[in-house]
Amino acid sequence: MARYIDLTWPIEEHWRYPGFKREIISSFDDGKLWQITKFTLGSHWFSHMDFPLHSGKGLEDSNCYPLEHYNGPASVVDIRTGSSLKNHAFTAEELKKAIGDRKLEKIVLLRSDWDKEVSHMTREFWLDAPYLADDAIDYLATLELNMIAFDFPQDYAIRPIFDHPVSPEEQKTHVALLRKGTLLVEYVWNFDQIGQDTCEIICMPLRLEHIDGGPVRFVAKV
Amino acid sequence: MARYIDLTWPIEEHWRYPGFKREIISSFDDGKLWQITKFTLGSHWFSHMDFPLHSGKGLEDSNCYPLEHYNGPASVVDIRTGSSLKNHAFTAEELKKAIGDRKLEKIVLLRSDWDKEVSHMTREFWLDAPYLADDAIDYLATLELNMIAFDFPQDYAIRPIFDHPVSPEEQKTHVALLRKGTLLVEYVWNFDQIGQDTCEIICMPLRLEHIDGGPVRFVAKV
Repeated sequence: MARYIDLTWPIEEHWRYPGFKREIISSFDDGKLWQITKFTLGSHWFSHMDFPLHSGKGLEDSNCYPLEHYNGPASVVDIRTGSSLKNHAFTAEELKKAIGDRKLEKIVLLRSDWDKEVSHMTREFWLDAPYLADDAIDYLATLELNMIAFDFPQDYAIRPIFDHPVSPEEQKTHVALLRKGTLLVEYVWNFDQIGQDTCEIICMPLRLEHIDGGPVRFVAKV
Repeated sequence: MARYIDLTWPIEEHWRYPGFKREIISSFDDGKLWQITKFTLGSHWFSHMDFPLHSGKGLEDSNCYPLEHYNGPASVVDIRTGSSLKNHAFTAEELKKAIGDRKLEKIVLLRSDWDKEVSHMTREFWLDAPYLADDAIDYLATLELNMIAFDFPQDYAIRPIFDHPVSPEEQKTHVALLRKGTLLVEYVWNFDQIGQDTCEIICMPLRLEHIDGGPVRFVAKV
């Protein structure tokens, strides 16, 4: 029987997303007959997908990609180093070594287990994060993948966003990968629970039309 | 290769959900470097799942059901009548005839194609809808299913909600099925596109914790 491993962060109060609101708008305690909840979310909050439109005017939105593009067989690539990942730059050489001679599926999960070293509820999760070196990003672009999912904030230049705006060009995965049609799944976790090198990925955003990104339920089926 | 058939309504402006809001909060036209969208949704708007907590205080919420309960093999039961379904009451006898001697999976899609007769963008979709007769609901309860998905508003007493509050007891599927752990998926469509009697159902709500229901991406994989 199939097992579903939920790789999605819970959507709950989080300092990084002060705009997240959740309210019971029909409550038994107020004498109502049904419970109904209203919530407000952003297209790039919590576990989410990026479509190219996130990074440039007129680029492709959610409707440009069929479900087949980002659901299906996936390869888990283990890039753990065996020591602390704080501010570690993953290089092309490290990625190549982790991949070895495997033929990768079109969906790849880069497993660093950063979420096991530092909680995603802390600022350090972003400020001390490991990241992809430029040559690693260039190498991933040569693979022409449909989608990559990360358990760590993959661009070094996530750090300055807490002080000032940062361009897509400074967050290179968004230019070298996203704009080329390699969709990004950011802020997912628990890749260690998959327990094998391949899985089937179920990646289901809400069906908001022509959007730049969206919160997803991101699940491995094994 | 797998094919994914999206059975989810698009989330877009709809008279029934005036509370649905969608706004670009970071726009290239305003000189921003990224496009980001914010949106407000309800737990029972558009294509969605019901958890028992929707229908009674202290009942089971989303965290009480693992993904395995509502994802996996599904049976499509064709209950079309060959003529107009306006205000048609599906009876237990009709359901039994439609099922015949099939052994059903734990997830069932009741296919009426009501969405092909009347658009879900109209009031008539609710006010003239076919529905399940009481004996049909009792019969479905005996099957002890994990989940049922409907392409029509399945309770007769959806009609009065446009005038006055209606209790779960009056919307009998919520008492006889939902409160017994047979989850309901409401307002999904295009069951005709599945093209076969069985499929794999992917039913992925957002990971909002301990909630009474939620918008889903509801997809058949064949």
